[in-house]
Amino acid sequence: MVSIADPAGFLRGLFDTAVQHALPAHGMAAALPPPPRGRTLVLGAGKAAGAMVHALEALWPPHAALSGLVVTRYGHTPPRPPGVPARVEIAEAAHPVPDAAGLRAAERMLALTQGLTAEDLVLCLISGGGSSLLTLPCEGLTLEDKQALNRALLHSGANITEMNCVRKHLSRIKGGRLAAASAPAQVVTLAISDVPGDDPAVIASGPTVPDETTCADALAILSRYGIALPQSVEAALRRGDLETPKPADARLPEHPVHLLATPLQSLQAAAEKASAAGLAVHLLGDAIEGESREVGRMHGGMARAIALERSSLQRPCVLLSGGETTVTVTAHIPADQRGRGGRAGEFCMGVAEALQGQPDVWALAADTDGIDGMEDNAGARVSPDTLARASALGLSLASHQQRNDAYGFFSALGDLVVTGPTHTNVNDFRAILVL
Amino acid sequence: MVSIADPAGFLRGLFDTAVQHALPAHGMAAALPPPPRGRTLVLGAGKAAGAMVHALEALWPPHAALSGLVVTRYGHTPPRPPGVPARVEIAEAAHPVPDAAGLRAAERMLALTQGLTAEDLVLCLISGGGSSLLTLPCEGLTLEDKQALNRALLHSGANITEMNCVRKHLSRIKGGRLAAASAPAQVVTLAISDVPGDDPAVIASGPTVPDETTCADALAILSRYGIALPQSVEAALRRGDLETPKPADARLPEHPVHLLATPLQSLQAAAEKASAAGLAVHLLGDAIEGESREVGRMHGGMARAIALERSSLQRPCVLLSGGETTVTVTAHIPADQRGRGGRAGEFCMGVAEALQGQPDVWALAADTDGIDGMEDNAGARVSPDTLARASALGLSLASHQQRNDAYGFFSALGDLVVTGPTHTNVNDFRAILVL
Repeated sequence: MVSIADPAGFLRGLFDTAVQHALPAHGMAAALPPPPRGRTLVLGAGKAAGAMVHALEALWPPHAALSGLVVTRYGHTPPRPPGVPARVEIAEAAHPVPDAAGLRAAERMLALTQGLTAEDLVLCLISGGGSSLLTLPCEGLTLEDKQALNRALLHSGANITEMNCVRKHLSRIKGGRLAAASAPAQVVTLAISDVPGDDPAVIASGPTVPDETTCADALAILSRYGIALPQSVEAALRRGDLETPKPADARLPEHPVHLLATPLQSLQAAAEKASAAGLAVHLLGDAIEGESREVGRMHGGMARAIALERSSLQRPCVLLSGGETTVTVTAHIPADQRGRGGRAGEFCMGVAEALQGQPDVWALAADTDGIDGMEDNAGARVSPDTLARASALGLSLASHQQRNDAYGFFSALGDLVVTGPTHTNVNDFRAILVL
Repeated sequence: MVSIADPAGFLRGLFDTAVQHALPAHGMAAALPPPPRGRTLVLGAGKAAGAMVHALEALWPPHAALSGLVVTRYGHTPPRPPGVPARVEIAEAAHPVPDAAGLRAAERMLALTQGLTAEDLVLCLISGGGSSLLTLPCEGLTLEDKQALNRALLHSGANITEMNCVRKHLSRIKGGRLAAASAPAQVVTLAISDVPGDDPAVIASGPTVPDETTCADALAILSRYGIALPQSVEAALRRGDLETPKPADARLPEHPVHLLATPLQSLQAAAEKASAAGLAVHLLGDAIEGESREVGRMHGGMARAIALERSSLQRPCVLLSGGETTVTVTAHIPADQRGRGGRAGEFCMGVAEALQGQPDVWALAADTDGIDGMEDNAGARVSPDTLARASALGLSLASHQQRNDAYGFFSALGDLVVTGPTHTNVNDFRAILVL
């Protein structure tokens, strides 16, 4: 007999477990190499870079030399933990469209690699968002060109793999180039994955990881999506001058990569907690993607089928999934009438739509970085009375869906999930409880 | 040890099992009442009406009086089985926008109910599509008004429950009115469900089933979607003159409803067949709905997670689901450049997109009525080499998705599922095999 007195609180506990498991401090001690004979240079980028630096500073022997520079997103430097002196600089820059601050940070990082010896160690702290934050365009490409390119890629329909292939070839720091610049020092990468499959070459466009893609691939992608480049850059791509370091490239020093946290590990931690409460757990995958609302409708449809005993999955249970969905803003709504909200909120509106007030089903979806889109909430929650309470307040789910106003819908209901920035990111977290 | 030598053939076998289980003959013998003292009048409508008549004629005692009229969709009268004389007329009419033939059939059905006595039996044969086929507008509404109303409803974004509420109140035959007209005869309904939840009041707008919705509900729906009516009809709705028979209404004779086939029963039959082959079966639900492509992406994402062992569901297994997805045609493509295809094909394109050529995963989606949208195929199939074969033929999945051209994509690959009309309909069937 399973008794969950507070289903919403229970789901929030699962989310908190997933986030705790993704914090940089969680796996760092086991992954750190011993201090080298020479000095240790810390470089890195990503939304978790600040928190990763703090965790490292607390763990690294106080007497061992430690210095360096990482770049994180504006506002993503966590409060400094008490009693741990700062040894690594944390810069901030723009995301997802790069700015001059990110470019300056990248230039300074490359400069810091000058004069490294084989006795030195470079610790690279990599997390999601690092691709935009670590910007250093190749010759012939201005920052403005790079910004325009990033915008064009983001609107083209290209997937993240395609975007990263282009970015890697037009960069002086991505696609293994940061590791190449660090030779002959030893390089160790500590990464937090926010990508399906956890491929280190994909996380933050793999600045320390050899790249399998080629200049020809990048050209094909640009042509596929009709994206133009300055003529000199396109010519350099055609000549192969911008080729990235390939696996087994002599330019790349040894580069072990440790994944400190991954979406799957966080989902599994939540799954264990739910199992311990006596619930069956169906972990559907860590890369469940698609249009947020539709992914929500299907999760809701599956949960409703379980509650109605029209499924082979049995209650009481929890459905868990991760991945990064997308929100397509309805184009024919004027910008000033569009609502606020991110993919977790959109997902929850889809769940509520599919559940149709089904008793005994609760849901929570939130972004593990604590920020759903551009808002101050991490996500939202759905309960059996969501639609009834909305109706009592005169809120129409359909109208909020039409305006992509998940924030407005769930804030009026008091059903936002608010955590503040968590300073880590293992992508979306979604849980549905069927009692 | 599970060995499936021909995965595509195996999935086709599951689909055929689901269809077999949905054929009218399957459950009819057990559901038929004994012949009455008086005469037996057969009335009915739906895409399976012809096949239901043939099954009934084969089962009904030859000496017992049997006559009547049903209406099915143009081209949906199955070939007459040998050796069984025709006793019930099968008319054909237009679907999904009603035409004069449907109206004439409905008028004649009401005329046939004249003079029935308490010793007579009315057998109503109801299946999906019956709502459009059985058209008899209320006073003040012409057939053209009704056609315009149907088109407006289909394009409004109203869901099927909302559409049916409006249709029932503006009809002289739906929403229990056919049963009311049959009094004092005994009425027995034999239905094939194509709707989530199998509510007999929803199947074909429940011509023999009392209606819980009201004139006020219908007005609210028309107002919500901005659909106008002739003034006299709106006034009649406001006065409540068009109220449908409610449960326990004295106008309604006794009306047992037997479900001969349902989506869930067909899915369960397929599940049993897969279990017998030694596979784990995950039946996700009989009402999994949403945008076809996105529902496909999520099925594909779940299957890929299982194949990559990033799911708590384990292979070898089959994922099964049913329901009715929707295809939103991309509005900015000129009509003459749009492709052909239905929701099963769209689903399969989404599956292929999410699977990314994942080894050991096969999929099949098809409509149990044998017609995917307006085409001559029932659906399509996906195999691990779908994308590679497409690429070798110069076919772009993304481009076919953009033009909603599932038919073109899968026919070029030789991967259409073709059955011809099955003369029954328990909605979509989707199966994914992960070995």
